Amino acid sequence: MNTPRLVTTAAELRSATEELLQKAAAADPARRPSLALVPTMGALHEGHAALMAAARAENDVVTASVFVNPLQFDDPADLERYPRTLDADLELLGRAGVDLVFAPAEEEVYPGGAPLVRLSAGTMGTRWEGASRPGHFDGVLTVVGKLFHYAAPPVPARFRAYFGQKDAQQVALIRRMVADLNFPVEITAVPIVRAADGLAESSRNRFLDAGQRQAALILSTALRQLRERAAAGQPLDLAAAVELIRSQPGVDLDYFEVVDPRTLEPLETSAPLEGEALALLAARVGPVRLIDNEVLR
Amino acid sequence: MNTPRLVTTAAELRSATEELLQKAAAADPARRPSLALVPTMGALHEGHAALMAAARAENDVVTASVFVNPLQFDDPADLERYPRTLDADLELLGRAGVDLVFAPAEEEVYPGGAPLVRLSAGTMGTRWEGASRPGHFDGVLTVVGKLFHYAAPPVPARFRAYFGQKDAQQVALIRRMVADLNFPVEITAVPIVRAADGLAESSRNRFLDAGQRQAALILSTALRQLRERAAAGQPLDLAAAVELIRSQPGVDLDYFEVVDPRTLEPLETSAPLEGEALALLAARVGPVRLIDNEVLR
Repeated sequence: MNTPRLVTTAAELRSATEELLQKAAAADPARRPSLALVPTMGALHEGHAALMAAARAENDVVTASVFVNPLQFDDPADLERYPRTLDADLELLGRAGVDLVFAPAEEEVYPGGAPLVRLSAGTMGTRWEGASRPGHFDGVLTVVGKLFHYAAPPVPARFRAYFGQKDAQQVALIRRMVADLNFPVEITAVPIVRAADGLAESSRNRFLDAGQRQAALILSTALRQLRERAAAGQPLDLAAAVELIRSQPGVDLDYFEVVDPRTLEPLETSAPLEGEALALLAARVGPVRLIDNEVLR
Repeated sequence: MNTPRLVTTAAELRSATEELLQKAAAADPARRPSLALVPTMGALHEGHAALMAAARAENDVVTASVFVNPLQFDDPADLERYPRTLDADLELLGRAGVDLVFAPAEEEVYPGGAPLVRLSAGTMGTRWEGASRPGHFDGVLTVVGKLFHYAAPPVPARFRAYFGQKDAQQVALIRRMVADLNFPVEITAVPIVRAADGLAESSRNRFLDAGQRQAALILSTALRQLRERAAAGQPLDLAAAVELIRSQPGVDLDYFEVVDPRTLEPLETSAPLEGEALALLAARVGPVRLIDNEVLR
């Protein structure tokens, strides 16, 4: 286990990044080194460890950021009680082989208070998860855009950023932001980590009792059925999948749609798919709201 | 006169920029070279030539972009009749010693149609010039953000962008965007070019007859009075300056305010200024709408 270098200002991040990339370039002058950024809000768990592992396997230098972004909380009480666990986070990041941790104070990121100019997610940010969280995705994109600028390699290098596919709408929006605004970074989405029973890993799963967890399995079952039908070139029959979930006692479905991953607009599901699609759902089970998704091909 | 190299794709721009910066670095290895970007919509005139001259004097490599950005036109007829004069533009850019001209087609900049994720100017973009042009400044920031990413040096270099102070609200918003979102670029505002009689140079001035031009001089006169009072540490007396313009027949004042250059919020003008301020005005004179401004210190 290494101990990652902790930096808290943009200037320190820039000079530490340059130093590490130059070292990597010197070790193998035939090839441009690569830099990975993994943005997080801390409170790290095994899902984050999978992001770090993917970044570590594919890059010369790995930077993780830890910043609880006030801009993406629509409820101040939520922001207040969001867990801050930097010591434990640093330990996990060290085990994952991360080189550099950027953990700025709020004053470093928003020195004049809330920014006046922001990234706007537009209609892609007001549906699905955005429907119940006004401004959330604008806040996410604004801080991610800032982090891309903070972390970008100051010397010739490939630049990649890693996000979890679990937050499918966030990934779709960040890909769209990069494409629409030409950010010089490549986005990698790391697949959902699932437990042996199929449930998507989430720090909220611990609040489910055994019966609730059993009921929640209907979500991944319904998604898997869609994936199998898509893979076989059959019509998806989304209505049947929705009905399957609705028939499960203890599961209160919020939404379940098949969408275009580039726009998040609903797709026609009565005919076999043309091209890639994304099945997205959210449901309340007992005390928690769960989200899950599958890429359909 | 040199002939600037014309490129039309992001990939060509990137490789041409890298080549020119490496040549500059080789010529003087002791120092990081600098790259200037001067974004334009073409139809270039002497005001643009002043931007190019400032960029040329201060940088190793100068890139100008020529792109009529549909996103910042709220009226499709305006976009349609906007002059496209690339051959004449290239001649002016050649005389100005520009190295590289990036003139992409609309399909290169917006390959999927209008972008879904955009830059948002927020409240700074809905007042003053923005009040009569909904969405205009969001469109400006979106394309300028894209251009910063297209043009950014792919090798170690300083990166500067040049804008005319004539469009004071645009400059203020771009400075704010760079600060709020940490774009790795330094912004330079090039002072307004004024005719001998004081009128700010504009391609619209040609539509003024002799009497209208004479009447329009009241605008720069009123701004000069504010500047002199600010420099002398006196109260600005904006009301008297407004009254001066209103008493001039043939001049229809739209707005005249003294604002904080960082937020464009109106400032108190009854007491002497603390810190820097910006006096902004717009007025209709005969067939044209004129804008002018002064930085007050």
